[in-house]
Amino acid sequence: MQTIKYPSRETWKSILARPAFDHTKLFDTVRNILDNVRQRGDSALKEYTLQFDKVEISELQVTQQEFADAEKLISEPLKQAIEMARRNIWKFHSEQQKEYRQIETHPGVVCWQKAVPIEKVGLYIPGGTAPLFSTVLMLAIPANIAECQEIILCTPPGKDGRVHPAVLYAAQVAGVHKVFKVGGTQAIAAMAYGTESIPKVYKIFGPGNQYVTAAKQLVSLKEVAIDMPAGPSEVEVLADETARPEFVAADMLSQAEHGADSQSVLITTCEQLADEVQEQVNLQLEQLPRKELTAKSLANSKIIVVKSLEEAIALTNEYAPEHLIVSTRCYNEVADNVINAGSVFLGHYTPESAGDYASGTNHTLPTNGYAKAYSGVNLDSFMRKITFQHITREGLDGLSNAITIMAENEALQAHSNAVKIRLQHDETEE
Amino acid sequence: MQTIKYPSRETWKSILARPAFDHTKLFDTVRNILDNVRQRGDSALKEYTLQFDKVEISELQVTQQEFADAEKLISEPLKQAIEMARRNIWKFHSEQQKEYRQIETHPGVVCWQKAVPIEKVGLYIPGGTAPLFSTVLMLAIPANIAECQEIILCTPPGKDGRVHPAVLYAAQVAGVHKVFKVGGTQAIAAMAYGTESIPKVYKIFGPGNQYVTAAKQLVSLKEVAIDMPAGPSEVEVLADETARPEFVAADMLSQAEHGADSQSVLITTCEQLADEVQEQVNLQLEQLPRKELTAKSLANSKIIVVKSLEEAIALTNEYAPEHLIVSTRCYNEVADNVINAGSVFLGHYTPESAGDYASGTNHTLPTNGYAKAYSGVNLDSFMRKITFQHITREGLDGLSNAITIMAENEALQAHSNAVKIRLQHDETEE
Repeated sequence: MQTIKYPSRETWKSILARPAFDHTKLFDTVRNILDNVRQRGDSALKEYTLQFDKVEISELQVTQQEFADAEKLISEPLKQAIEMARRNIWKFHSEQQKEYRQIETHPGVVCWQKAVPIEKVGLYIPGGTAPLFSTVLMLAIPANIAECQEIILCTPPGKDGRVHPAVLYAAQVAGVHKVFKVGGTQAIAAMAYGTESIPKVYKIFGPGNQYVTAAKQLVSLKEVAIDMPAGPSEVEVLADETARPEFVAADMLSQAEHGADSQSVLITTCEQLADEVQEQVNLQLEQLPRKELTAKSLANSKIIVVKSLEEAIALTNEYAPEHLIVSTRCYNEVADNVINAGSVFLGHYTPESAGDYASGTNHTLPTNGYAKAYSGVNLDSFMRKITFQHITREGLDGLSNAITIMAENEALQAHSNAVKIRLQHDETEE
Repeated sequence: MQTIKYPSRETWKSILARPAFDHTKLFDTVRNILDNVRQRGDSALKEYTLQFDKVEISELQVTQQEFADAEKLISEPLKQAIEMARRNIWKFHSEQQKEYRQIETHPGVVCWQKAVPIEKVGLYIPGGTAPLFSTVLMLAIPANIAECQEIILCTPPGKDGRVHPAVLYAAQVAGVHKVFKVGGTQAIAAMAYGTESIPKVYKIFGPGNQYVTAAKQLVSLKEVAIDMPAGPSEVEVLADETARPEFVAADMLSQAEHGADSQSVLITTCEQLADEVQEQVNLQLEQLPRKELTAKSLANSKIIVVKSLEEAIALTNEYAPEHLIVSTRCYNEVADNVINAGSVFLGHYTPESAGDYASGTNHTLPTNGYAKAYSGVNLDSFMRKITFQHITREGLDGLSNAITIMAENEALQAHSNAVKIRLQHDETEE
């Protein structure tokens, strides 16, 4: 990890630059797969699964028997852990429901919003030896609270043609309706266009590698909405002299173990802490099973020493971290001044991994500085707001001058006529 | 207008197909302009303004004097109309603020959301002889309620080098901070990347032609968020035998006058109404100043007669119209069953043009079926939700099994360590 002491404001931008990857470079490769799935449906999916996942799949949809088999493979402690996470995630996301009131904006003019679930949503879960069953919970639980009618999940099969049991168990617990054994770009294509087996959805959620990210971007241009643009995961720890170096080091390592392109940043007002964290990172790294990968990602990571807490907060808002751990004495005051971040963890006993799994908050969050414009996944991500209005004849009369004058000034005579023709009409026939 | 009577369900998809335009075909042209502005800033903007808008601009930013001049050109009735619209839009969007409560998801684990404004937003308003000053209100008012710190607006200058006075007046009234005389792809580039004069923003809003749409799509892949994908404007009238043919015809014409690619659809349970509306459309069309353009767009428009109100509603939800006018006896029951629409106008005295200008609802809405996944612009469009959490040592203890078991099952040992190291720590030092 590089340590940067007291950088001047002009250097902030370059110091905070993230390792860049241009997904648009993959568009040509990805577009071929998308087009092929769009045209040839299931048979293209099966060919790509053979090519990329090295397994022949006859039935794409996971059967009830496979769910039952999976459940048997899950230990009781893991089941209990998933249940606690499920309950807390459900609780936090349930509270995000909002009541919408009817507003009389003008006498006789009543307007309101109504939140409705997106009818069909698709969740993507990457494969691998340790698949992200926690992400299944994070996406499927709010989709269920929103009451989406069709919640499907695509995930690549292992070489044995099966889906990791923890993913299937989590899918069942969290209320996924159908699981399909298909991964990568081809899975995104299937959910965007629909195939014989896999229904088309209206919005796609979930993480993935660079091909999946590029595919989500491409289909989002026309066919389907996506949760948010993606980038490598990252954490920032904002710490003063009250922070424990061993806690800070553990938090930075927990981010770094995600992948070689992950980034951990410590911004601190305390030079001594900077040195001690460096020492602790080296010490704790030795014990990690993913030591090599983690070390690679630490090469992208930085310790930045600043003069004041105010400067630390300004630098944080400029960086807009996905995860922000605030390990300072007055963490509530820091929290009040955080403008750009995905999810914020306050105090010395609130590690990011609590929010990654079980505290109840969502872990699908804006990376790459996108927190400046995007929210993390929340209940609203699975809903839309429709506006409604009802106007009485008198109400329309009250608005008529405003509407007709504005419409005519925009040279839209027919807009004006739609009001005038109604008011010329015999009132008694309303 | 084509009339289709009692179509079978299998034909719905083709009947409801919209005139398609593939914006990705413009990407190469647009990318050149984007790159040029990114590299050469203001001087590229001025060159493109000379090339496309046929005017030489020395200062891009509109001056106080120009605002003052514009105000003098606005008639008192138009000022009053704008004021009524402003008040109603403000009222409706103010009510969209939400209180966020702290939730104790587990003893000692407190989580909450906080809504924060997007710091910097950019609004795009197209030019032309009748520029959309109403859209200025629709975008700038919620941005102001959200308390965005920097609200800028780009719009092309006329051949006299000035911005239409109604746009400047509306910008002033609605609280836009800075207006710049630049349009088209080059304006989108300026707001996405920033130039010497124009600040980079985090989210871009507003309508535009196909080049502007393509440019917004391209920059949304990396640099900046956008309001939503765009397509031609459209209205559906859902009517039974209680609807007045002259009102329905006026509503369909008011949509059709927007542009040759606009679409008006009538779905009705009443064959007689279908014929009468056709007649009324022909009659009213004769009186319109934009008669030729409107006639072109009517060629895309359709009257569909169905057997029942249930079928009409199902067809509506499949179409997912931007604007839906419900001209039926029991419009509230229809409203309850509308799942996919942008904005819904209920009853015989609620024309779309009320919502376009002055009722208070927003007129920036999802077109092209995007209402299945997207909301129209509302207060939330200008905000993000950050999640916060605070956990006590006891709270972390309560979650620790769940976190460590799940993390270890995802092969993320360092995630588990971040919890364990805290709980090994001497409790008294918290």
